[in-house]
Amino acid sequence: MKKINLLGATGSIGTQTLDIIGANPELFTLVSMSAGKNMDKVREIIAQFKPKLVSVLEQTDAERLQAEFPDVKIVFGEDGLIEAAVGFEADVLLNSVIGSVGLKPTLAAIEAGMTIAIANKETLVAAGDLVVQAAKRHNVPLVPVDSEHSALFQALNGENPKRITKLILTASGGSFRDSTRDQLQNVTVEQALAHPNWSMGNKLTIDSATMMNKGLEVIEAHHLFAMPYDQIECLLHKESIIHSMVEFEDTSVMAQLGSPDMRVPIQYALTYPDRIPMANAKRLRLDEIGKLHFEKMDYERFKALAFAYDAGREGGTMPTAMNAANEVAVQLFMEGHISFMQIEDIIEQMMEQHETIKEPNLEEILETDRITRKKVYGIVK
Amino acid sequence: MKKINLLGATGSIGTQTLDIIGANPELFTLVSMSAGKNMDKVREIIAQFKPKLVSVLEQTDAERLQAEFPDVKIVFGEDGLIEAAVGFEADVLLNSVIGSVGLKPTLAAIEAGMTIAIANKETLVAAGDLVVQAAKRHNVPLVPVDSEHSALFQALNGENPKRITKLILTASGGSFRDSTRDQLQNVTVEQALAHPNWSMGNKLTIDSATMMNKGLEVIEAHHLFAMPYDQIECLLHKESIIHSMVEFEDTSVMAQLGSPDMRVPIQYALTYPDRIPMANAKRLRLDEIGKLHFEKMDYERFKALAFAYDAGREGGTMPTAMNAANEVAVQLFMEGHISFMQIEDIIEQMMEQHETIKEPNLEEILETDRITRKKVYGIVK
Repeated sequence: MKKINLLGATGSIGTQTLDIIGANPELFTLVSMSAGKNMDKVREIIAQFKPKLVSVLEQTDAERLQAEFPDVKIVFGEDGLIEAAVGFEADVLLNSVIGSVGLKPTLAAIEAGMTIAIANKETLVAAGDLVVQAAKRHNVPLVPVDSEHSALFQALNGENPKRITKLILTASGGSFRDSTRDQLQNVTVEQALAHPNWSMGNKLTIDSATMMNKGLEVIEAHHLFAMPYDQIECLLHKESIIHSMVEFEDTSVMAQLGSPDMRVPIQYALTYPDRIPMANAKRLRLDEIGKLHFEKMDYERFKALAFAYDAGREGGTMPTAMNAANEVAVQLFMEGHISFMQIEDIIEQMMEQHETIKEPNLEEILETDRITRKKVYGIVK
Repeated sequence: MKKINLLGATGSIGTQTLDIIGANPELFTLVSMSAGKNMDKVREIIAQFKPKLVSVLEQTDAERLQAEFPDVKIVFGEDGLIEAAVGFEADVLLNSVIGSVGLKPTLAAIEAGMTIAIANKETLVAAGDLVVQAAKRHNVPLVPVDSEHSALFQALNGENPKRITKLILTASGGSFRDSTRDQLQNVTVEQALAHPNWSMGNKLTIDSATMMNKGLEVIEAHHLFAMPYDQIECLLHKESIIHSMVEFEDTSVMAQLGSPDMRVPIQYALTYPDRIPMANAKRLRLDEIGKLHFEKMDYERFKALAFAYDAGREGGTMPTAMNAANEVAVQLFMEGHISFMQIEDIIEQMMEQHETIKEPNLEEILETDRITRKKVYGIVK
């Protein structure tokens, strides 16, 4: 029985993780969890999964819940999030909160010796070196949940990592893959949120539309697989069937394929190195799909991806600044304060202004994150 | 340093194996070898690779060679082939002879405890149960050289074989993939030998045109991976880029891809579980290829493949009879004695007439092979 702590339980990844835990009660149990403000969903989850601890965002919500569920320990805020991450000697932390707020709980769980199923890519982008070094020091596996990184992780099964020549991340192209840059000037939030293949959270869907998501994934892959940026390539593949590939010295390419369904990589992160059957999943039928398409990535068209390579190569706090700028810019776009194209402009501007600290400590990373966010709000308001 | 015995050294697979041995003299050495009648090539190989033993088909060729190369032991015929297979405590037998003549040397090498790199698929078709049981008894690995089976083998790296739900063998469709059955009536040997993707020996190219090659591979996969026929599927994929795939219980599909180049699976069989760089190989560029196509296999169009499933499911000596009928029919077609379509007719007829012996011993297998061959010659002459 694997004891699981789940951060971000009411989000897209969180909900699908609960599906898997619920479908396999003999294998998994939910020990503690965090959520934001969706109290109706939190109540449902408590009733069904009976966790020992629940962390929510606001103190008022926490107090109300505590009265309703006297047997459950209810906590809140940043400290509550960390308590939810490390509590009850759980085996695995599945961290699916959105944004760099996921960093501290991940570091705390690594120090507690837990396996980290990492769905919070911003953590690795903002503080990849710190997280990877901590994981090595505590001999803790970092198992990716992102479909692309899970594909790479699966393709590396039983392989000698020294033989890798290239990681190839596939990219659907997002909601605007068939639009020119000119056509992007006046796109709406609604249009940006209509992803052609994957059902995901809003932040992730906007990041896919700007291709910043692929950029974050490039940096994530760099840290997870200790791979130089020159050996990480992106490939447009609009069907999202090949989830990513690894090329080896002998020219062999290993790939993981499947129908787009986030439950598959989530479940794999929980069962690795074994697999278990997936309930109600759609098997891949390439004969029905007929054709798979591939196209060279266009770094002029998708400028945010080029920024991410730049930030990754620069290293230090530059990816932290880039990520913070992107997080706030996406929020401002969704709230109607800026246009879609301004997301890129803001990232570019913040990267230009940022003075990189090489080999930053945690405080310097958090400070970079905080200052950059403040600056972005300053530009717009 | 791996000591290699190579059967079929002057054929397509043999020549490419020698390329790999020659390119990696610090890793591999050729200890003994066999060839048929191409004495010019045999002389070249002896001069370059200096094997200790050479087996050829005819006694007269053997005597002439012995005079020319007094330091090399020259043998001939069926006994010579077995001596070449097991000699000098080599580490690996790479058996790439064509046809069921490869059976006895493979069994002898298994008994000698050598790793078998198996490029002689007819051995596994004619006597799969015997070969697999012998390999288990002597704890000898059977490493596939066929590109499809190598792909499956690579896709199974680090995986729990109990989690396999399906092996998916890809098929280019061969020389006549765009022809209807009516259009096949008058095709020539030359047309049949023009394979769109792979450069292979003649027998294999004709087998690809009839799709019997995929049938032999289905039976080979059944034995190599202990997989029921219902869980082995064939998929038309005209580019031959995805070399085959494994589907698992969680709906994940693992695949091996690459430019069509037989040296890759040959080298992998020699370096497994590690990989080494491949000299002068073409790296896969999916962005340049642009599209991969997939189509449901048509068992009415490709009747030989349906026969192979039937023979495999029947088991016992039925695949032996089918394989013998096919070997002779292909030879008769290449010699101009029968039409392309008669290959299928002869296989069907021989399978109808054959009375299966369940769990045959080696003698019964060899007898089935001999009688079936004789019968096919009897029909035609």
